[in-house]
Amino acid sequence: MAVGQCNFPEMLDVAGIQLGTACAAIKQTVRDDILVIQMSEHSACAAVFTQNAFCAAPVHVAKANLAQAPRWLVINSGNANAGTGAQGMQDALTSCISLAVIAGCAANQVLPFSTGVIGQPLPVEKIKAALPAAINNLSPGNWDKAAKAIMTTDTFPKGVSKVISVEGKSITINGISKGAGMIQPNMATMLGFIATDANIKQHLLQECLAQAVEQSFNRITVDGDTSTNDACVLMATGCSAAPEITRHSENYPIFADAVMTVCKQLAEAIVRDGEGATKLMRIAVEQSLNDEEAVRVGKTIAHSPLVKTAFFASDPNWGRILAAVGRSGVENMDLDKVQIFLDDVCIVKDGGRANTYTEEAGQQVMNQEEITVTVKLGRGDACQEILTCDFSYDYVRINAEYRT
Amino acid sequence: MAVGQCNFPEMLDVAGIQLGTACAAIKQTVRDDILVIQMSEHSACAAVFTQNAFCAAPVHVAKANLAQAPRWLVINSGNANAGTGAQGMQDALTSCISLAVIAGCAANQVLPFSTGVIGQPLPVEKIKAALPAAINNLSPGNWDKAAKAIMTTDTFPKGVSKVISVEGKSITINGISKGAGMIQPNMATMLGFIATDANIKQHLLQECLAQAVEQSFNRITVDGDTSTNDACVLMATGCSAAPEITRHSENYPIFADAVMTVCKQLAEAIVRDGEGATKLMRIAVEQSLNDEEAVRVGKTIAHSPLVKTAFFASDPNWGRILAAVGRSGVENMDLDKVQIFLDDVCIVKDGGRANTYTEEAGQQVMNQEEITVTVKLGRGDACQEILTCDFSYDYVRINAEYRT
Repeated sequence: MAVGQCNFPEMLDVAGIQLGTACAAIKQTVRDDILVIQMSEHSACAAVFTQNAFCAAPVHVAKANLAQAPRWLVINSGNANAGTGAQGMQDALTSCISLAVIAGCAANQVLPFSTGVIGQPLPVEKIKAALPAAINNLSPGNWDKAAKAIMTTDTFPKGVSKVISVEGKSITINGISKGAGMIQPNMATMLGFIATDANIKQHLLQECLAQAVEQSFNRITVDGDTSTNDACVLMATGCSAAPEITRHSENYPIFADAVMTVCKQLAEAIVRDGEGATKLMRIAVEQSLNDEEAVRVGKTIAHSPLVKTAFFASDPNWGRILAAVGRSGVENMDLDKVQIFLDDVCIVKDGGRANTYTEEAGQQVMNQEEITVTVKLGRGDACQEILTCDFSYDYVRINAEYRT
Repeated sequence: MAVGQCNFPEMLDVAGIQLGTACAAIKQTVRDDILVIQMSEHSACAAVFTQNAFCAAPVHVAKANLAQAPRWLVINSGNANAGTGAQGMQDALTSCISLAVIAGCAANQVLPFSTGVIGQPLPVEKIKAALPAAINNLSPGNWDKAAKAIMTTDTFPKGVSKVISVEGKSITINGISKGAGMIQPNMATMLGFIATDANIKQHLLQECLAQAVEQSFNRITVDGDTSTNDACVLMATGCSAAPEITRHSENYPIFADAVMTVCKQLAEAIVRDGEGATKLMRIAVEQSLNDEEAVRVGKTIAHSPLVKTAFFASDPNWGRILAAVGRSGVENMDLDKVQIFLDDVCIVKDGGRANTYTEEAGQQVMNQEEITVTVKLGRGDACQEILTCDFSYDYVRINAEYRT
C-alpha cells in the first residue's frame, strides 16, 4: 500500500555510469539483491551518512574510502551488516576486495552499502559468489533493476530522472532511493544513489549534496527511528559536454536546484511508501522564530502516534495536533497567537477552536489521501516543512512480522 | 487488555478525606464521571502539573488556587477542557464557583481537573447539575468509585493503599490514578490523587511529592505524548495521631519513601493499562555517566515504534534496541563497551551479538508478559529505569476510534 501514484519513471542514461544487479539470495531467493555501480574514471563522488552513533560496518568503510577517488559502489539488501562487531568489518572489507579483484581496481576505491535486518552476520560468501553475475550485467540502462535490487520493505521502486540545460548542453541527474521504515534520516536517507554526468569538483559536489539532503531527506519521518545504515551518494562523472560547474558560475544554482529537486522527490517517495501508510501529510510550520524551531514543532507533530492514528482514522482530532505543538519544547509559546489549518480550513485560532470551524469541513479534508497541516506560530518569519505518513494497523503488522 | 494482575485493592479510609461521585453524562450516560474530594480544615495540599506549553484551562486555575489553602477538588472525565480558549477558562471557574456555593467555601479553595477529549467545549451546565448528587454521596469509603469516575480509556481502576507506623501511630497513604494513552508525563502523570492523614507542612509536602513524581510518573511512557492536563495532587489532612513529619525528623524518610512507593505503584498501573498493551517492559539503563543520560537512552528505546512492535510480536529483534541506543544522542558512545540483556540473557557484547546468545534463549524471554531490557553503557555508575509497554494493533484501533 502506498499513497498516490508511484510509477517508476523513464530514466535516461547517465554517461559514465553503469549498473549491474544479481541475486545473491541473502534473504530471499526470488529477486536480485545485489547492485554494483561503476563510475567512469575521474568521477567525483560525494556522500552523507547516518548520525546514528552505532553506524554499520559498511558505513565505516564507505566513509574511509570516500577520499580514495571511488570507482565502484557495491550494495546489498536483506542484511544491514550492523551490530556485527569485528566480523562485520571484515565482511564489509571482503565485499570490497572481492569486487576490486574482478574489476581490477584498488579495494579502497569501492564503497560498500548494506540494508536489511540488523544484527545478523552478513553472508559474504553469497555476495562474493554473485558479484561476477552482477558485473556481467553492467549496463547504463539498469536503473529500474537497480532500484528494485535495493528494496527491503518498500512496496515500489523509487526513481527520479531530470535533465537541465547548461549553456545549450544537457546535464542528466538520476536518483534512486529505498526506505519505508526506520525513517527519520539524520544527515541522509536510508539509501539514496544519485548520479549525474555533470563536471564538478568533489568539494563543491559534497556541499551541494549536503544542502540538498538537509532540505529533503532530513525533512521526512515515518517512525522517528534513525537507521544505522543511512547513506546518500552523489556521483558526478563529468562526461557531459556542458562546461564545468564552478562555485561562482551562473550554472551552479541551476545545478544545485536540480539536485535538490531530485532529492526532494526521492524523499517524498519514501514517505509515500511509509510502512502501512494510507495518507501523506505535509506539516508546514510557519511564523516561527527560526528554522530549528519550525523543524522541532513539525517533527513533534509528525512523530506523535496519537496524531498519526487520528489521521489513519480520518478523524479531525486537532486537539492532538495542538497538544503536540505544546509539548515540542519551544519556550514562551503563546497559544492565543497559534493558528492551525487542515489544508485551508482554519481549525485553531485565538486559543481554541476557530469560530468558523465545522466538523464537516474538517472531515472533508481528512478524507483526502494527501493533507497539509499548517501551523502558524505567530512568533517570526521562518518556515519549514516536514513530510510524514499516518500510522495504521499495517505498520504494526509489517514491523511485528519483519523477521518471520 | 492489561498486563498482569490489576485488581483494585482494599483501600483504608484516610481520616479527613471524603469522596463523592455522580453521573453528569459528559461523554457517556452509563457511569459516574464527576468526582469531588473534600479535605478537612487545615489540610496541606501539594501538586505538580504538566509541562505542556498549552496546558488546559483547569490546570491554569488549579495552579493559581493551590496557594489558597484548597479544601476541595472537582474532577471530571470525558472532556479535557483543553484548547477551549477564554470560554474554557470561564467554564473551569464556573465549576469551582458552583461547588463553592454548595460547599460554603471560597471558589479559589477549589482545584478543578478535567480529562478526556481535547478541544470540545466543557458541558459545564451538566457538571453544575450533577454536583449536588456528588456532594450528597460524600463518604470516606468511596475510593473505588472515585478511581472509576476519573477513567477515560483505562480498562481498570487504579489504586494503592499503604500504612506506615510512625512512633507507634499509623499513617495511611491512599492514591488513585488514571491514564492509558498520551502518556509521557513531564512533572506529573495524567491524573493522580493521593491523600494521607499525615501532619506535614505544605512546603515539605510539595518537596516530597516532586521527588516521588520524578522517580515514578516521570519514568513511564506509553506513546511519548505529554497531555495538556497532567496533574498529580498530594493531600495531607493532619488527622493522624502520629507526630508532625518535619524535614529533619527520622520519620521524614519513612514517609517520603512510602509516598514514593505509592507513586511508583500507581505509575506502573498506568503502563500495565497502556492502550493496547500486551507486555510490560522495564528498560534499565546502567553504567551511564549520569542520570540524565540514562533517562535519555531509556526513553529513546521506550519510544521506538520499531522496538515496541517487535515486543508485541515477541520477536527478540535486538538490532532495533541497539539502533535506538545509537540514535539517542549520547556523545562518544563506544559500541564495544555496550552490553544489552533480555532479562538475564546477554544479547549484545563486544560490538555485536554475544557469542553465548541463542535465538531460543531470546525467544523464551520474549514470550513472557513482563520483560526487563538492561542496557549497560560502560561509561559510569549512574542508572535509571523507564517503564513502558508494547505497541499493538489495539493501540491503533483504540486511538483511531477514540472520538467515535
